Amino acid sequence: MKNYFWSYIAGFLDADGSIYVQLKQNSTYRYKFQIAPSVVFYQKKTEKVGLSEIQKKLGLGYIRYRNDGMVELVINDRKSIKTLLTKVRPNLILKVDQARLMIKILNKMDKVTSIKDFLSLTELIDLFRELNYSKKRTVDSRVVGDHL
Amino acid sequence: MKNYFWSYIAGFLDADGSIYVQLKQNSTYRYKFQIAPSVVFYQKKTEKVGLSEIQKKLGLGYIRYRNDGMVELVINDRKSIKTLLTKVRPNLILKVDQARLMIKILNKMDKVTSIKDFLSLTELIDLFRELNYSKKRTVDSRVVGDHL
Repeated sequence: MKNYFWSYIAGFLDADGSIYVQLKQNSTYRYKFQIAPSVVFYQKKTEKVGLSEIQKKLGLGYIRYRNDGMVELVINDRKSIKTLLTKVRPNLILKVDQARLMIKILNKMDKVTSIKDFLSLTELIDLFRELNYSKKRTVDSRVVGDHL
Repeated sequence: MKNYFWSYIAGFLDADGSIYVQLKQNSTYRYKFQIAPSVVFYQKKTEKVGLSEIQKKLGLGYIRYRNDGMVELVINDRKSIKTLLTKVRPNLILKVDQARLMIKILNKMDKVTSIKDFLSLTELIDLFRELNYSKKRTVDSRVVGDHL
Protein backbone atom coordinates (compact mmCIF):
# COMPACT_ATOMS: atom_id res chain seq x y z
CA MET A 1 0.00 0.00 0.00
CA LYS A 2 2.61 2.54 1.05
CA ASN A 3 4.66 1.89 -2.09
CA TYR A 4 1.63 2.44 -4.29
CA PHE A 5 1.14 5.78 -2.59
CA TRP A 6 4.73 6.81 -3.34
CA SER A 7 4.13 5.93 -7.00
CA TYR A 8 1.02 8.09 -6.89
CA ILE A 9 3.06 10.95 -5.43
CA ALA A 10 5.71 10.46 -8.14
CA GLY A 11 3.02 10.93 -10.79
CA PHE A 12 1.57 13.92 -8.99
CA LEU A 13 5.00 15.56 -8.67
CA ASP A 14 5.87 14.89 -12.31
CA ALA A 15 2.59 16.34 -13.54
CA ASP A 16 2.18 19.43 -11.44
CA GLY A 17 4.91 19.72 -8.85
CA SER A 18 8.07 21.70 -8.59
CA ILE A 19 11.54 20.94 -7.21
CA TYR A 20 13.71 24.00 -6.73
CA VAL A 21 16.18 25.85 -4.52
CA GLN A 22 16.09 29.57 -3.83
CA LEU A 23 19.07 31.67 -2.84
CA LYS A 24 17.99 34.51 -0.58
CA GLN A 25 20.16 37.33 0.65
CA ASN A 26 20.06 37.23 4.45
CA SER A 27 22.76 38.83 6.58
CA THR A 28 21.96 36.65 9.59
CA TYR A 29 23.32 33.61 7.74
CA ARG A 30 26.96 32.64 7.94
CA TYR A 31 27.57 33.16 4.22
CA LYS A 32 25.08 36.05 3.92
CA PHE A 33 22.75 33.99 1.76
CA GLN A 34 20.12 31.49 2.75
CA ILE A 35 19.70 28.32 0.73
CA ALA A 36 16.00 27.49 0.68
CA PRO A 37 15.06 24.17 -0.95
CA SER A 38 11.42 23.36 -1.75
CA VAL A 39 9.23 20.69 -3.20
CA VAL A 40 5.78 22.08 -3.98
CA PHE A 41 2.56 20.59 -5.34
CA TYR A 42 0.05 23.01 -6.85
CA GLN A 43 -3.72 22.84 -7.23
CA LYS A 44 -6.63 25.19 -7.72
CA LYS A 45 -8.34 26.15 -4.46
CA THR A 46 -11.30 23.99 -5.48
CA GLU A 47 -9.08 20.97 -4.75
CA LYS A 48 -8.01 22.06 -1.28
CA VAL A 49 -9.81 19.19 0.48
CA GLY A 50 -8.10 16.59 -1.72
CA LEU A 51 -4.72 18.26 -1.42
CA SER A 52 -5.05 18.30 2.38
CA GLU A 53 -5.89 14.60 2.25
CA ILE A 54 -2.70 13.97 0.27
CA GLN A 55 -0.71 16.04 2.80
CA LYS A 56 -2.10 13.97 5.68
CA LYS A 57 -1.34 10.68 3.96
CA LEU A 58 2.12 11.97 3.13
CA GLY A 59 2.76 13.15 6.68
CA LEU A 60 5.16 15.77 5.32
CA GLY A 61 4.92 19.47 4.58
CA TYR A 62 2.00 21.84 5.05
CA ILE A 63 -0.82 23.48 3.08
CA ARG A 64 -0.40 27.11 2.02
CA TYR A 65 -3.23 29.22 0.62
CA ARG A 66 -2.18 31.77 -1.97
CA ASN A 67 -3.99 34.96 -2.90
CA ASP A 68 -4.45 33.98 -6.53
CA GLY A 69 -6.90 31.10 -6.16
CA MET A 70 -4.22 28.46 -5.82
CA VAL A 71 -3.36 26.19 -2.94
CA GLU A 72 0.03 24.58 -2.40
CA LEU A 73 1.37 21.60 -0.54
CA VAL A 74 4.81 22.82 0.48
CA ILE A 75 7.70 20.72 1.75
CA ASN A 76 10.69 22.79 2.70
CA ASP A 77 12.56 21.18 5.53
CA ARG A 78 15.60 19.27 4.33
CA LYS A 79 14.86 16.00 6.04
CA SER A 80 11.32 15.79 4.62
CA ILE A 81 12.53 16.66 1.11
CA LYS A 82 15.16 13.94 1.30
CA THR A 83 12.62 11.38 2.51
CA LEU A 84 10.15 12.33 -0.22
CA LEU A 85 12.61 12.41 -3.11
CA THR A 86 14.34 9.20 -2.09
CA LYS A 87 10.97 7.45 -2.11
CA VAL A 88 9.57 8.87 -5.35
CA ARG A 89 12.79 8.88 -7.38
CA PRO A 90 12.54 5.30 -8.72
CA ASN A 91 9.14 6.12 -10.23
CA LEU A 92 9.76 9.60 -11.62
CA ILE A 93 9.74 10.00 -15.39
CA LEU A 94 9.80 13.78 -15.99
CA LYS A 95 11.64 15.22 -12.98
CA VAL A 96 14.43 12.67 -12.58
CA ASP A 97 17.20 15.24 -13.03
CA GLN A 98 15.67 17.73 -10.61
CA ALA A 99 15.31 15.04 -7.93
CA ARG A 100 18.90 13.90 -8.39
CA LEU A 101 20.23 17.47 -8.27
CA MET A 102 18.21 18.31 -5.16
CA ILE A 103 19.50 15.24 -3.30
CA LYS A 104 23.05 16.14 -4.31
CA ILE A 105 22.58 19.71 -3.05
CA LEU A 106 21.06 18.57 0.25
CA ASN A 107 23.97 16.21 0.84
CA LYS A 108 26.46 18.96 0.06
CA MET A 109 24.71 21.43 2.36
CA ASP A 110 25.63 19.22 5.31
CA LYS A 111 29.32 19.49 4.45
CA VAL A 112 29.89 23.19 3.82
CA THR A 113 32.88 24.40 5.88
CA SER A 114 34.26 27.26 3.76
CA ILE A 115 33.33 30.04 1.38
CA LYS A 116 34.70 27.90 -1.42
CA ASP A 117 32.35 25.04 -0.50
CA PHE A 118 29.47 27.48 -0.32
CA LEU A 119 30.22 28.97 -3.73
CA SER A 120 30.48 25.57 -5.37
CA LEU A 121 27.11 24.76 -3.79
CA THR A 122 25.56 27.89 -5.32
CA GLU A 123 26.90 26.81 -8.71
CA LEU A 124 25.01 23.54 -8.34
CA ILE A 125 21.90 25.53 -7.50
CA ASP A 126 22.34 27.49 -10.74
CA LEU A 127 21.74 24.24 -12.61
CA PHE A 128 18.08 24.30 -11.56
CA ARG A 129 17.56 27.27 -13.82
CA GLU A 130 17.97 25.15 -16.93
CA LEU A 131 16.18 22.10 -15.57
CA ASN A 132 13.16 24.16 -14.60
CA TYR A 133 13.30 26.58 -17.54
CA SER A 134 13.10 29.42 -15.03
CA LYS A 135 14.29 32.75 -16.34
CA LYS A 136 13.33 34.89 -13.40
CA ARG A 137 16.08 33.71 -11.05
CA THR A 138 17.88 36.87 -9.93
CA VAL A 139 20.15 35.66 -7.14
CA ASP A 140 22.59 33.14 -8.59
CA SER A 141 26.14 32.00 -7.86
CA ARG A 142 27.57 35.13 -9.49
CA VAL A 143 25.58 37.43 -7.21
CA VAL A 144 26.69 35.39 -4.18
CA GLY A 145 30.31 35.43 -5.42
CA ASP A 146 30.21 39.22 -5.76
CA HIS A 147 29.19 39.50 -2.11
CA LEU A 148 31.64 37.04 -0.56
CA MET B 1 5.70 -3.12 -11.74
CA LYS B 2 2.61 -2.55 -13.85
CA ASN B 3 0.54 -1.72 -10.77
CA TYR B 4 3.07 0.86 -9.63
CA PHE B 5 2.78 2.47 -13.02
CA TRP B 6 -1.02 2.70 -12.69
CA SER B 7 -0.54 4.40 -9.31
CA TYR B 8 1.84 6.83 -10.99
CA ILE B 9 -0.77 7.53 -13.68
CA ALA B 10 -3.42 8.05 -10.97
CA GLY B 11 -1.22 10.74 -9.40
CA PHE B 12 -0.49 12.32 -12.77
CA LEU B 13 -4.19 12.40 -13.66
CA ASP B 14 -5.19 13.83 -10.29
CA ALA B 15 -2.57 16.57 -10.49
CA ASP B 16 -2.83 17.75 -14.04
CA GLY B 17 -5.27 15.65 -16.03
CA SER B 18 -8.82 16.11 -17.13
CA ILE B 19 -11.78 13.75 -17.45
CA TYR B 20 -14.65 15.15 -19.46
CA VAL B 21 -17.32 14.53 -22.10
CA GLN B 22 -18.21 16.93 -24.89
CA LEU B 23 -21.54 17.08 -26.66
CA LYS B 24 -21.07 18.16 -30.27
CA GLN B 25 -23.81 18.92 -32.75
CA ASN B 26 -23.30 16.60 -35.73
CA SER B 27 -26.11 15.77 -38.13
CA THR B 28 -24.44 12.56 -39.29
CA TYR B 29 -25.08 11.01 -35.87
CA ARG B 30 -28.27 9.16 -35.11
CA TYR B 31 -29.38 11.59 -32.41
CA LYS B 32 -27.85 14.63 -34.12
CA PHE B 33 -25.24 15.04 -31.38
CA GLN B 34 -21.94 13.30 -30.93
CA ILE B 35 -20.86 12.25 -27.44
CA ALA B 36 -17.08 12.70 -27.24
CA PRO B 37 -15.44 11.44 -24.04
CA SER B 38 -11.81 12.32 -23.25
CA VAL B 39 -9.12 11.79 -20.69
CA VAL B 40 -6.30 14.27 -21.23
CA PHE B 41 -2.93 14.86 -19.56
CA TYR B 42 -1.34 18.28 -20.04
CA GLN B 43 2.26 19.43 -19.99
CA LYS B 44 4.34 22.30 -21.29
CA LYS B 45 6.01 21.53 -24.61
CA THR B 46 9.35 21.36 -22.79
CA GLU B 47 8.13 18.04 -21.35
CA LYS B 48 7.13 16.48 -24.68
CA VAL B 49 9.81 13.77 -24.52
CA GLY B 50 8.71 12.65 -21.06
CA LEU B 51 5.04 12.79 -21.97
CA SER B 52 5.70 10.64 -25.06
CA GLU B 53 7.51 8.17 -22.81
CA ILE B 54 4.46 8.00 -20.57
CA GLN B 55 2.23 7.50 -23.62
CA LYS B 56 4.39 4.60 -24.81
CA LYS B 57 4.42 2.93 -21.39
CA LEU B 58 0.68 3.42 -21.19
CA GLY B 59 0.08 2.01 -24.66
CA LEU B 60 -3.05 4.14 -24.91
CA GLY B 61 -3.93 7.42 -26.59
CA TYR B 62 -1.75 9.75 -28.64
CA ILE B 63 0.30 12.94 -28.31
CA ARG B 64 -1.20 16.19 -29.60
CA TYR B 65 0.78 19.40 -30.00
CA ARG B 66 -1.18 22.57 -29.38
CA ASN B 67 -0.44 26.03 -30.71
CA ASP B 68 -0.05 27.59 -27.28
CA GLY B 69 3.11 25.89 -26.07
CA MET B 70 1.32 22.95 -24.51
CA VAL B 71 1.40 19.29 -25.37
CA GLU B 72 -1.35 16.80 -24.51
CA LEU B 73 -1.62 13.07 -24.08
CA VAL B 74 -5.15 12.43 -25.31
CA ILE B 75 -7.19 9.29 -24.80
CA ASN B 76 -10.54 9.44 -26.51
CA ASP B 77 -11.60 6.02 -27.61
CA ARG B 78 -14.09 4.47 -25.26
CA LYS B 79 -12.31 1.19 -24.72
CA SER B 80 -9.01 2.86 -23.79
CA ILE B 81 -10.75 5.27 -21.42
CA LYS B 82 -12.50 2.38 -19.70
CA THR B 83 -9.24 0.45 -19.36
CA LEU B 84 -7.42 3.47 -17.98
CA LEU B 85 -10.06 4.58 -15.50
CA THR B 86 -10.72 1.07 -14.23
CA LYS B 87 -7.01 0.71 -13.48
CA VAL B 88 -6.38 4.12 -11.86
CA ARG B 89 -9.66 4.44 -9.98
CA PRO B 90 -8.56 2.63 -6.79
CA ASN B 91 -5.69 5.09 -6.39
CA LEU B 92 -7.38 8.36 -7.30
CA ILE B 93 -7.82 10.92 -4.55
CA LEU B 94 -8.99 14.11 -6.32
CA LYS B 95 -10.86 12.89 -9.40
CA VAL B 96 -12.78 9.94 -7.94
CA ASP B 97 -16.19 11.37 -8.87
CA GLN B 98 -15.18 12.22 -12.43
CA ALA B 99 -13.83 8.70 -13.00
CA ARG B 100 -16.98 7.11 -11.60
CA LEU B 101 -19.24 9.35 -13.71
CA MET B 102 -17.24 8.68 -16.88
CA ILE B 103 -17.43 4.90 -16.41
CA LYS B 104 -21.17 5.20 -15.80
CA ILE B 105 -21.61 7.24 -18.99
CA LEU B 106 -19.50 4.84 -21.09
CA ASN B 107 -21.57 1.90 -19.86
CA LYS B 108 -24.80 3.74 -20.67
CA MET B 109 -23.58 4.70 -24.15
CA ASP B 110 -23.57 1.02 -25.08
CA LYS B 111 -27.22 0.70 -24.21
CA VAL B 112 -28.87 3.69 -25.88
CA THR B 113 -31.85 2.53 -27.99
CA SER B 114 -34.16 5.55 -27.88
CA ILE B 115 -34.28 9.35 -27.76
CA LYS B 116 -35.30 9.02 -24.12
CA ASP B 117 -32.16 6.99 -23.35
CA PHE B 118 -30.07 9.52 -25.21
CA LEU B 119 -31.53 12.46 -23.32
CA SER B 120 -30.99 10.83 -19.95
CA LEU B 121 -27.39 10.22 -21.02
CA THR B 122 -26.92 13.90 -21.84
CA GLU B 123 -28.24 14.75 -18.38
CA LEU B 124 -25.51 12.61 -16.88
CA ILE B 125 -22.99 14.47 -19.02
CA ASP B 126 -24.28 17.77 -17.59
CA LEU B 127 -22.99 16.61 -14.19
CA PHE B 128 -19.40 17.05 -15.40
CA ARG B 129 -19.95 20.78 -15.44
CA GLU B 130 -20.08 20.92 -11.65
CA LEU B 131 -17.38 18.33 -11.07
CA ASN B 132 -14.96 20.14 -13.37
CA TYR B 133 -16.06 23.67 -12.46
CA SER B 134 -16.41 24.35 -16.17
CA LYS B 135 -18.58 27.31 -17.01
CA LYS B 136 -17.99 27.43 -20.73
CA ARG B 137 -20.07 24.38 -21.65
CA THR B 138 -22.55 25.57 -24.29
CA VAL B 139 -24.09 22.33 -25.56
CA ASP B 140 -25.87 20.64 -22.68
CA SER B 141 -28.88 18.34 -22.24
CA ARG B 142 -31.27 21.26 -22.71
CA VAL B 143 -29.79 22.19 -26.08
CA VAL B 144 -29.98 18.54 -27.15
CA GLY B 145 -33.58 18.30 -25.87
CA ASP B 146 -34.57 21.37 -27.88
CA HIS B 147 -33.29 19.68 -31.04
CA LEU B 148 -34.82 16.23 -30.59
